[in-house]
Amino acid sequence: MTDLLKGIPMPEELRTMSRTELKGVARALRQFLLESVSQTGGHLSSCLGTIELAVALHAVFNTPDDRLVWDVGHQAYPHKILTGRGARFSRLRMKDGLSGFLKRDESPYDSFGAGHSSTSISAGLGMAVAAKLEKRDREVVAIIGDGAMTAGMAYEALNNGGVLDANLLVVLNDNEMSISPNVGAVSQYLTRILSGRLYNTVRDGAGQALSLVPPLRELAKKAEEGVKGLVTPGTLFEEMGFNYFGPIDGHDLDTLIPTLENLKKIEGPRLLHVMTKKGKGYGPAEDDPCTYHGVTPFNQSDGKMAKKAGGPPTYTKIFGDWLCDKGGAESSLVAITPAMREGSGLVRFEQLYPERYYDVGIAEQHAVTFAAGMACDGIHPVVAIYSTFLQRAYDQLLHDVAIQNLPVLFAIDRAGLVGADGATHQGAFDLAYSRCIPNLVIMAPKDEQELRDMLNTGFAYPGPALVRYPRGNGVGLELDKHLQRQLPIGKAETLRTGKKLAILSFGTRAAAALEAGEALDATVINMRFVKPLDHELLNEVSRTHQALITVEEGVIAGGAGSAVAEYLLNQGQMLPMRILGLPDQFIEQGDASQWLAELGLDAAGITASGKLLLESLAR
Amino acid sequence: MTDLLKGIPMPEELRTMSRTELKGVARALRQFLLESVSQTGGHLSSCLGTIELAVALHAVFNTPDDRLVWDVGHQAYPHKILTGRGARFSRLRMKDGLSGFLKRDESPYDSFGAGHSSTSISAGLGMAVAAKLEKRDREVVAIIGDGAMTAGMAYEALNNGGVLDANLLVVLNDNEMSISPNVGAVSQYLTRILSGRLYNTVRDGAGQALSLVPPLRELAKKAEEGVKGLVTPGTLFEEMGFNYFGPIDGHDLDTLIPTLENLKKIEGPRLLHVMTKKGKGYGPAEDDPCTYHGVTPFNQSDGKMAKKAGGPPTYTKIFGDWLCDKGGAESSLVAITPAMREGSGLVRFEQLYPERYYDVGIAEQHAVTFAAGMACDGIHPVVAIYSTFLQRAYDQLLHDVAIQNLPVLFAIDRAGLVGADGATHQGAFDLAYSRCIPNLVIMAPKDEQELRDMLNTGFAYPGPALVRYPRGNGVGLELDKHLQRQLPIGKAETLRTGKKLAILSFGTRAAAALEAGEALDATVINMRFVKPLDHELLNEVSRTHQALITVEEGVIAGGAGSAVAEYLLNQGQMLPMRILGLPDQFIEQGDASQWLAELGLDAAGITASGKLLLESLAR
Repeated sequence: MTDLLKGIPMPEELRTMSRTELKGVARALRQFLLESVSQTGGHLSSCLGTIELAVALHAVFNTPDDRLVWDVGHQAYPHKILTGRGARFSRLRMKDGLSGFLKRDESPYDSFGAGHSSTSISAGLGMAVAAKLEKRDREVVAIIGDGAMTAGMAYEALNNGGVLDANLLVVLNDNEMSISPNVGAVSQYLTRILSGRLYNTVRDGAGQALSLVPPLRELAKKAEEGVKGLVTPGTLFEEMGFNYFGPIDGHDLDTLIPTLENLKKIEGPRLLHVMTKKGKGYGPAEDDPCTYHGVTPFNQSDGKMAKKAGGPPTYTKIFGDWLCDKGGAESSLVAITPAMREGSGLVRFEQLYPERYYDVGIAEQHAVTFAAGMACDGIHPVVAIYSTFLQRAYDQLLHDVAIQNLPVLFAIDRAGLVGADGATHQGAFDLAYSRCIPNLVIMAPKDEQELRDMLNTGFAYPGPALVRYPRGNGVGLELDKHLQRQLPIGKAETLRTGKKLAILSFGTRAAAALEAGEALDATVINMRFVKPLDHELLNEVSRTHQALITVEEGVIAGGAGSAVAEYLLNQGQMLPMRILGLPDQFIEQGDASQWLAELGLDAAGITASGKLLLESLAR
Repeated sequence: MTDLLKGIPMPEELRTMSRTELKGVARALRQFLLESVSQTGGHLSSCLGTIELAVALHAVFNTPDDRLVWDVGHQAYPHKILTGRGARFSRLRMKDGLSGFLKRDESPYDSFGAGHSSTSISAGLGMAVAAKLEKRDREVVAIIGDGAMTAGMAYEALNNGGVLDANLLVVLNDNEMSISPNVGAVSQYLTRILSGRLYNTVRDGAGQALSLVPPLRELAKKAEEGVKGLVTPGTLFEEMGFNYFGPIDGHDLDTLIPTLENLKKIEGPRLLHVMTKKGKGYGPAEDDPCTYHGVTPFNQSDGKMAKKAGGPPTYTKIFGDWLCDKGGAESSLVAITPAMREGSGLVRFEQLYPERYYDVGIAEQHAVTFAAGMACDGIHPVVAIYSTFLQRAYDQLLHDVAIQNLPVLFAIDRAGLVGADGATHQGAFDLAYSRCIPNLVIMAPKDEQELRDMLNTGFAYPGPALVRYPRGNGVGLELDKHLQRQLPIGKAETLRTGKKLAILSFGTRAAAALEAGEALDATVINMRFVKPLDHELLNEVSRTHQALITVEEGVIAGGAGSAVAEYLLNQGQMLPMRILGLPDQFIEQGDASQWLAELGLDAAGITASGKLLLESLAR
């Protein structure tokens, strides 16, 4: 591995190398990436697809002064390795190790941090405008996938960029995939471009073809709109004000490098359409890019992945199974996902009920209001979405669903700490940002049986309901798959009756809370509902106990514990209380259980907090 | 007025009328609209532009069973009048009166509520899919402006709708304006369509032309992409999978009605491009549609508007002046607005510094990440945005700005109660949804001098800063226009020292709090910072007082008072406390001062709460 890294120089040196040498670098890079990720796990398929692109971009542009803005981040390992971080790949995505995404404080070559998709054109445009205002001679390149191009944010940026006189090059990295196969009209449009004769023409002599393009394009500008369509296939981007080039082969340095060099000479908004193959150069990943999108450690020779830690089914699977069961019983159930079929556990539902399955692309805003529209007319939509991505549809949740009190069920996965993905993906904020919205019912199950019961409850509720559950395994219960059992809205469950102290747990911290409760002989309540709160029980508990602790896997600021405090205060029933949850900082990557221990949210931490609180009473 | 209403029948009767009679209805409608809005104020220009469209849609479609989904809502007065609500227009946008927007619980003809823009295609698509799944023979029409089309949400919906086999008709109501003149590449594209020869051709014989379109289009499908461009000018929409028709004259019922009738016969996703004139039929509004977008009562004969209640300058103006002053002194300052030039007070800045003014269109997501990109490279962006619209950029605030701790200043206007716009536009949530995000500095001024000082403070702060201020007038201070004075971050100001009770005020409730403080002989603190809180002062106050009240113009759930409670609780310094703020419900339209009184947030209300709290101590 160390030997391979020797063959991968820093960008400055790259720029002095011959084409042949650069091809050698690309080979070494691919080999290193495979070796390294096969040992640590991580994002593989996308990164195998951007190796030549990363080499070419760093060879042609004067990084880090020229800005590369990689979209999403999970396509950027080659870029990270090329910019001096190869040696740190052994601790990829681990606590205190290298981030799996882009991060400004990790390297000056990471000009913009990115975990969520579709931000690169906006950020790159900002940088291009900054360069213009500051009269700097700087190139800005945004590299965005065709999947990310389905997001409204990318369109907003194109719409703006097309009329600004800023030097932005957008590289559309088209591998016909997001994490899953890409969907939507724009995706079909890109496929039509490829099916045309132009792709091959350009492929055959890209450098030459490109050098012809600007005059041709000028000619086209003068002609009718329709005639222009004959000259360049990228009409859609041209209509948006971008000078379109391509498509070209994104794995051929002999095409990529001269093309990028020519594009560097052109000013204004440009879009280069590059075709790549997800998983390129590694058979198993080429054949099944979905499975190899994010991998556990695997055997390079046969591609077999280490079994994920066995254990009980994940919450994701429990949700997916419920969805299939409930969908079988209720023909009005429709499932909606913004491009997270696998991650959200929808694969089987799609197979069983394709006519009631809607993957809308990376389009969280649309996903939620699309659901709202359905809910107006007798359909009962279930929006499956990650906590961190629901942030993208915040206004739609509030303005389109909650104000109108529409029956949409949100199945919020990855709520709480997410582990290796780190700060950009933590499901830390959903309780705080949703709790302030009127009309919502917000639930957090203590285990997988309760998840099912809450999904039933939310589905039957005639208004908007959210069920939030974490990444990872359930506790391993034998499930009662009843489809009708509902929980009474706003009612908590007492798990243990003790003395003096009551621990109010929201969600899957319940087991740890119970353990702490045993140690402290405290009452332990599984609150179930963050909204509405069980006021009756809170009244009772505050009368019969001397102190309270709340526990949640979410930010303290404005979260569930905060709701308990607000209620008791305004009732004049306050007693000594501690709110346990995530502190006011972004939590970096690392094993969730490690973080929970460090933040005092495991059984030991809750017990310690309880002891301190009880001691303070005694003083 | 009542006579005019007699000439405006319900939709069912409309469908039995001759073309000549319908033209009479349109005339009566325009006259009634003018009469009525000239007396109450409201949204005028947009509504004058949709009169014929509303008549034609209700005449052709079987409403309310067929669904009309009007985007934004402020273009929908003609629709509201046509559906039996004319008599209630005398209480338009008043408390307990008629909403200025669409509202499902106001009428079965309002199939989807809308205050924010660009939601209609998503919602309409949801309804069209619902109709398909339920095998209902129902037409769904989404009516969206060219301004609203700049939002990413609209693109996400088109991208999805273009590949679903659902019967959705999108009517693009193109008046070349949002509230201000429309911007961006798509807007330029629409203008290019109009400049082409096709517009006139179609205008001259629209019914006939349209009847030819489907076969022509089939022909085009078979030919090359480019050839198709010769047939239809709407390539961009065609690329998105929508069958494009138009442009046609949106004020000519003889064109509109047969076109819509023909379009009803076609299946699948269709887009009709309709040209309208904002302010149509009323000279002053045609000449200056911007000014007449939202009006106070006016004299119909000369168009002169009633002077807005004079009084001191608004917070909006104070911000706008600061921006010009500061922009003059700091060449790195750039102002960004998502299509709210007038509302955010940016008119003069644009005139003075056009090269540093960016109206990005209705594109909140892009606006924020565009600013983040600039902030990476030495530019200091100020994002001027309404509290309610920042909801649209929540993830960008969190993921692109806060995680990277970038120096972007957010000037958040319309924070708190907004009056006549009602539930969809209340600035009720910003404190709660932003407070949970790490790294943000959040400020709320007590008056206009403090607004200026806070803007200075936020601009100088090397990370993200938010300053939130309300709609309406300042208190009328003589301003010290110093551009350097900053407030110490996280430090509160004691306004009055009293006994027993301390009132902690966040933002412009300070005057009311002070009045209550005088009445109760209480300490009154102007907290200034919602984040970071002044911990030192809170420690001190909790030691020296027996009870606390917090006051804010924002939701109680997770807001500023909640932050005070969290801190004191976890310090073990809790004392009896009440959190005053907006309750957990959507607040409908109505005068802000009326609402504040009703919700106990005026001086009398705060005093009453203080008395009760002090009495509870005595027990």
